[in-house]
Amino acid sequence: MNFKERDREHLWHPLTQHKLHPEHLPIVSAKGVWLYDEEGKKYIDGIASWYTCMYGHSHPQIISRVKQQLDILDQVVFSGFTHPPAIELSEKLMAVLPSTMAKIFFSDNGSTSVDVAIKMSLQYYFNQGQKKKRIIAFENAFHGDTFGAMSVSGLSVYNGPFEDFLLTVDRLEVPDENNLSAVLDNFKAVLDTGEVAAFIYEPLVQGAAAMHMYRPDHLEMLLQMAQEADVLTIADEVMTGFGKTGMNFASEYMISQPDMMCLSKSLTAGVAPMALTCCSQKVYDAFYDDEIGKGFFHGHTYSANPLACTAAIAGLDLLGSEEIQSNIKRIHNRHLEFAQRIKDHDKVKQTRVTGVIFALDLDITMDRYGKLRDQLYSFFMEKGVFLRPLGNTIYTLPPYVITDGELDLIYQVMEQSLEII
Amino acid sequence: MNFKERDREHLWHPLTQHKLHPEHLPIVSAKGVWLYDEEGKKYIDGIASWYTCMYGHSHPQIISRVKQQLDILDQVVFSGFTHPPAIELSEKLMAVLPSTMAKIFFSDNGSTSVDVAIKMSLQYYFNQGQKKKRIIAFENAFHGDTFGAMSVSGLSVYNGPFEDFLLTVDRLEVPDENNLSAVLDNFKAVLDTGEVAAFIYEPLVQGAAAMHMYRPDHLEMLLQMAQEADVLTIADEVMTGFGKTGMNFASEYMISQPDMMCLSKSLTAGVAPMALTCCSQKVYDAFYDDEIGKGFFHGHTYSANPLACTAAIAGLDLLGSEEIQSNIKRIHNRHLEFAQRIKDHDKVKQTRVTGVIFALDLDITMDRYGKLRDQLYSFFMEKGVFLRPLGNTIYTLPPYVITDGELDLIYQVMEQSLEII
Repeated sequence: MNFKERDREHLWHPLTQHKLHPEHLPIVSAKGVWLYDEEGKKYIDGIASWYTCMYGHSHPQIISRVKQQLDILDQVVFSGFTHPPAIELSEKLMAVLPSTMAKIFFSDNGSTSVDVAIKMSLQYYFNQGQKKKRIIAFENAFHGDTFGAMSVSGLSVYNGPFEDFLLTVDRLEVPDENNLSAVLDNFKAVLDTGEVAAFIYEPLVQGAAAMHMYRPDHLEMLLQMAQEADVLTIADEVMTGFGKTGMNFASEYMISQPDMMCLSKSLTAGVAPMALTCCSQKVYDAFYDDEIGKGFFHGHTYSANPLACTAAIAGLDLLGSEEIQSNIKRIHNRHLEFAQRIKDHDKVKQTRVTGVIFALDLDITMDRYGKLRDQLYSFFMEKGVFLRPLGNTIYTLPPYVITDGELDLIYQVMEQSLEII
Repeated sequence: MNFKERDREHLWHPLTQHKLHPEHLPIVSAKGVWLYDEEGKKYIDGIASWYTCMYGHSHPQIISRVKQQLDILDQVVFSGFTHPPAIELSEKLMAVLPSTMAKIFFSDNGSTSVDVAIKMSLQYYFNQGQKKKRIIAFENAFHGDTFGAMSVSGLSVYNGPFEDFLLTVDRLEVPDENNLSAVLDNFKAVLDTGEVAAFIYEPLVQGAAAMHMYRPDHLEMLLQMAQEADVLTIADEVMTGFGKTGMNFASEYMISQPDMMCLSKSLTAGVAPMALTCCSQKVYDAFYDDEIGKGFFHGHTYSANPLACTAAIAGLDLLGSEEIQSNIKRIHNRHLEFAQRIKDHDKVKQTRVTGVIFALDLDITMDRYGKLRDQLYSFFMEKGVFLRPLGNTIYTLPPYVITDGELDLIYQVMEQSLEII
């Protein structure tokens, strides 16, 4: 049997109806922006393997540091013990995170970082003798797949089997020019109940909602209202973090800073799973007490895994380099040029750009996981570009190390795809 | 500042009340069974870093394969793509898993593997037009910290802030010689409601409940009853898996095999976070359909991370080796000898052994995280042995590569500790 056949024997893939999508393409190696299949055909990784490998696959600076760490310390319990990679990472993060962030709590993926943030919010009030039962989240938000994270996610097409088991969440429309005053009114009405623990949001760009973008000044209004109402704010920057919006963190586009931030994905530069929930001193202080039960009794076995911390340190060093920072600006400007060129195409409804994220909506209606989506996907792959259309949205979020020539190939293939629909 | 001081600046540790436990010992390296602090003092890792590093820290065979993989393929999206390490791992797992296991779904830690199993259970019935609202779990169970996993966990001392946000779970006493018939009656009564989706359990040993052990024939009765009632069974082998009970999996001690198994911890041999939810063909088939919505729309970004898969392959190769298998037997027999010697000590209430797990209960009452627990912990560390007492239980679950001399050191320190209480 070849790899494709062997894959079908025992593997159940995420987000997949296997009867409709029985085949998974074996990728045998990757380097820089390129993925290679077993026949040697190569594909540009146009979404940086779900926004993780932003410095390119197997970047030599990252790989060599992780290899060194493997010889020194693989794993140690993070209760009672600490280790140099976690300490160094915490210091490097503090140097780039918004100044309100004070403490870092580790977990293993975006979903758990959100479950942690929700638990911290609830216990923050509980420790002060208050029970707050409501959480506010945006419509079409995506925050993950564990029960807590799934509850605050508004992309509920597939939540049917679990709806009786989810936390109660007040859903808010994402603000835009047309609905702003209604959104502010609705937000105020829920805040006024006095029952809200937290407001969770993906700042500026809702990734899974097909890279839906919204204005920082609108979000700023919501953050100010939440903070005046003493409601904790949670910025889910799992997708937006580490440079993708043009700033290190999307939260930097606002004046009001969140009480908590969730980080994962490119945190570890595509090497290993890891996530963080960062918080302000105010949040941490509500748990710091002579009473043991006021502590945060949450913990995953591999919390602050030394290899993942080492990859994250190497990633942060690259992010701060002049080369990567100028690449981010270059990609952003190239995206703007392409958007300008393509926006009036008769198959294009609209284009949008934030940082290194470029998206265009096709002027047709499509199922999120429908047939046309699959045709587009196959067309891109045939042309040697890995892109995952989301409904009628085609987007790219390429590794920062992509060259102008490679970017042109992505744009060209996107443009050609407009002819097949 | 030294490492200890730097740790206190920004790090929030798991399961820790920082006001009462402000200091975390910096571990700078590890090799085999030994952890080293920055002054060069060494400690036997008596619990294999929370049951992960079972083949010893940085085992050369594991490390060299992971290093090779780092150069080849770091990460790729596991929807639409597959890769050789995931395929090879699935095949090696199938060779050792109970024969009823057919498919493997990846996630990142024990908690998410449990959230996945719960979601699979609920959707299994939902896809067949049935809504089942109840889940049965043992008292004092521990299945993790995400909202789903926390709901089925019965160690609820610290669940207070979240109790209004948990799934409804029917709690069952763990069977023993005295309560067996009542437990069976209670189990039957809940099963008879016809509303139960799943029964989740830690087979033979409840780890966080201070290594509480119970009989396979008792569990066998429960499994048979659940299966007769068409209730899915979920074996949480996150702690017990990969040889710790003397068999590759604790489930092998029973005739009735579970519908799902959760695996993590030593799966990746202490290298990187990863978890699996394995299931039978029956479970998988309930999701395999022309209707896309019947698929399992759950996914974590780093699912089936190639490095973690490679570590798991290398770990399985070691587990299957004659050397490790004979070590497991040797450690088990040494534990039995020590239990025999210490059981009549007047400070010892009882001892128990399953596989490489040895536990003794002190004949005193203690707080789970109280002062005496801290004194014992400090005593062990002073003597160069890392053990984490759980309430009045002292236990060891050492790496399989521990020598007889190193085991003697653990036993000796345990025995000495009886004199300080």
